[in-house]
Amino acid sequence: MQYKTIDYQVNELILTLSLNRPEQMNSFTVEMATELVHAFNRASDDDEVSVIVVTGKGRAFCAGMDLTREGNVFGLDETKNPSVADMHDNKTIPGVSDTGGTVNLSIYDCKKPVIAAINGVAVGVGATMLAAMDIRLASEKAKIGFVFEKIGITPEACSSWFLPRVVGISQALEWVYTGEIFDASIAKESGFVRSVHAPEDLMEAAYTLARNISNKSQVGITLARQMMLRLSAADTPREAHNVDSLAIFYTSQQDGKEGVKSFLEKRAPNFKSKSSTDMPSFYPWWK
Amino acid sequence: MQYKTIDYQVNELILTLSLNRPEQMNSFTVEMATELVHAFNRASDDDEVSVIVVTGKGRAFCAGMDLTREGNVFGLDETKNPSVADMHDNKTIPGVSDTGGTVNLSIYDCKKPVIAAINGVAVGVGATMLAAMDIRLASEKAKIGFVFEKIGITPEACSSWFLPRVVGISQALEWVYTGEIFDASIAKESGFVRSVHAPEDLMEAAYTLARNISNKSQVGITLARQMMLRLSAADTPREAHNVDSLAIFYTSQQDGKEGVKSFLEKRAPNFKSKSSTDMPSFYPWWK
Amino acid sequence: MQYKTIDYQVNELILTLSLNRPEQMNSFTVEMATELVHAFNRASDDDEVSVIVVTGKGRAFCAGMDLTREGNVFGLDETKNPSVADMHDNKTIPGVSDTGGTVNLSIYDCKKPVIAAINGVAVGVGATMLAAMDIRLASEKAKIGFVFEKIGITPEACSSWFLPRVVGISQALEWVYTGEIFDASIAKESGFVRSVHAPEDLMEAAYTLARNISNKSQVGITLARQMMLRLSAADTPREAHNVDSLAIFYTSQQDGKEGVKSFLEKRAPNFKSKSSTDMPSFYPWWK
Repeated sequence: MQYKTIDYQVNELILTLSLNRPEQMNSFTVEMATELVHAFNRASDDDEVSVIVVTGKGRAFCAGMDLTREGNVFGLDETKNPSVADMHDNKTIPGVSDTGGTVNLSIYDCKKPVIAAINGVAVGVGATMLAAMDIRLASEKAKIGFVFEKIGITPEACSSWFLPRVVGISQALEWVYTGEIFDASIAKESGFVRSVHAPEDLMEAAYTLARNISNKSQVGITLARQMMLRLSAADTPREAHNVDSLAIFYTSQQDGKEGVKSFLEKRAPNFKSKSSTDMPSFYPWWK
Repeated sequence: MQYKTIDYQVNELILTLSLNRPEQMNSFTVEMATELVHAFNRASDDDEVSVIVVTGKGRAFCAGMDLTREGNVFGLDETKNPSVADMHDNKTIPGVSDTGGTVNLSIYDCKKPVIAAINGVAVGVGATMLAAMDIRLASEKAKIGFVFEKIGITPEACSSWFLPRVVGISQALEWVYTGEIFDASIAKESGFVRSVHAPEDLMEAAYTLARNISNKSQVGITLARQMMLRLSAADTPREAHNVDSLAIFYTSQQDGKEGVKSFLEKRAPNFKSKSSTDMPSFYPWWK
Repeated sequence: MQYKTIDYQVNELILTLSLNRPEQMNSFTVEMATELVHAFNRASDDDEVSVIVVTGKGRAFCAGMDLTREGNVFGLDETKNPSVADMHDNKTIPGVSDTGGTVNLSIYDCKKPVIAAINGVAVGVGATMLAAMDIRLASEKAKIGFVFEKIGITPEACSSWFLPRVVGISQALEWVYTGEIFDASIAKESGFVRSVHAPEDLMEAAYTLARNISNKSQVGITLARQMMLRLSAADTPREAHNVDSLAIFYTSQQDGKEGVKSFLEKRAPNFKSKSSTDMPSFYPWWK
């Protein structure tokens, strides 16, 4: 796929995935959703990618759905009349399924950690997309808003699942109810972003964090990511214990052997496992 | 129903629901529980109500269960011998079911956002009631305590479900174990309240927030509230995706059309949907 | 059981459980795991214990798995080839099941609150063990790290379930991905510990908190602990309501009678219930 709305650049195991409609403040389209899903799926099995940094080209991160386009901006087929019975796991219904949600599910399923570098305005789907990423850093110029209710629609992109996990249910409800746009300092205070940076320092801060992940075992990081995302929502810790036991059993015989050896020899480890080919047979355990 | 222990006042789409036993510091009784359930159910389908602000008349918010009353203060029938097998969803057993829980389940099921304006002492069921509300503001005079264990009983009102969602499991456990009474600054630091105000400014701060919600689409807000409360507890984001898709499909054809139009015309929207009659057919999806 | 790697000391209803391999910085072994599980199970039904304080002898809390030992440090049987189908609730498979997880499940099931007094270094299983405890206090000398990925293995001990509940999913992912070691001030800022103390004040701070719990009803505290841990992960608050109703029904007729009486008489209560013999018949409700 030749991307028209995003940019995919890999350098030293780090993928920089940039929203790339700078003239339109990287506003979101159905085409961008399709390209983002493709890119996250591609990176998931691309061994040259250990970590993903997502940012926006130009001044904005993403100004939300492009409401200025002619016609059906949400890509919805209004002749349909979907019901609960039509909606099933892992099935996308053209003209019905929320496009922001397909992007965030591709982030959720991705084998690689996803870091957001919020360089500017991030509203609507530009904000809910952030909630699905693992860790967020913001420029001092970031402005974030879950603005859906201002135009009479509901928040989407699985934000009801992701956002309360990041900032708690009360903060999530207030942002969604009011649609208010808030700045980087409030994003930091609420825990939505881990750190705030001068605009010129943002990408280097994101890459410093990314390098501190890309030097780890690819299989070890992939397993940890999926364990944390999925088992944190389990009913009891026993479900985690079952998966933990398998994960540590297999990783301790794979990159873990080199890890312990390098630790005892007081040198940097040389991990070799690849997420594309070396996942232990119990992965994915949830299928 | 003619309320004897609460006051129900609607003004410009905002219901002020006041606990109204000021001489008894608004201490809770079985009668108050019945009236509160009635009031939340009534407001849920009252189109003149878009947002609910809950506060207490007089000095206190609610001093907990009225332990000074003669007889059976909890309304329990000690001749019964209930077991797990007797407890079922949506069934209330007279003399057994926790009355604070029936209030908090009526808040959970309510179609309208609930804001707490904590004007003074809020202990026992006066504190657990707060945990079920969406957003909390406190007067500098607020004193809050989950004091149950001080008198040898367990916390109630579904607080084991609500409280850890607001302040995290460790803070919730400490407050419940010790029963300590804490002030507004600790409530703010822990995230239990969003903001602290001088006593004379509390209600205006609550109303300012409420007005920033009451000017939205009633159906849009109702859907968002129930999506956030219920889907944040789902096992995976795919469950949220299914509901999101239906919610944005229908709202974008309802108040969403006016919302996008008003946005492009740079004017305030004129939303018309009503939660009583205009909920899309997939609501409630969880039944 | 005669403990070789831990110390079990009870004084005035408070158990001090100390990791006791100070010459090895209390590094974790399979033997220590077995002894810790035994100790938490023993304390669970020991009526002389109302609260547990866990700390480390000497400078460290726990320096993680003892990687310097000869042979199979994780106690794994590499001739086995376990799959998801082999892992079942409540079943431990020798040579496969994660030993840190068996310790944390014994903490989860324990009837008594568990307070961590982090006196020094706590890394690897020394850190994930902390995540399963109810409340954490740290010495200014504490250094904490979820260092697993540094040696190519995944975090264990049900940390994917426990850690995000304490510090949120994003902070949990960052600590796990990078394996960075952080100090007490970051532990406080993130909410991982409730308070930081001078080294010489740590134990007294932990005991002060413990005494504020040990003076409560033993049955009341046991019920509250299990309700908060289990029902906070329920799908809906109705599940909590069902258990709450039974818990307050029975406790209000047990220590609750003395609790209300002492409150009205303005004196300290004299609670008598014991977790070993006086749990109401609906406990444990989850079996």
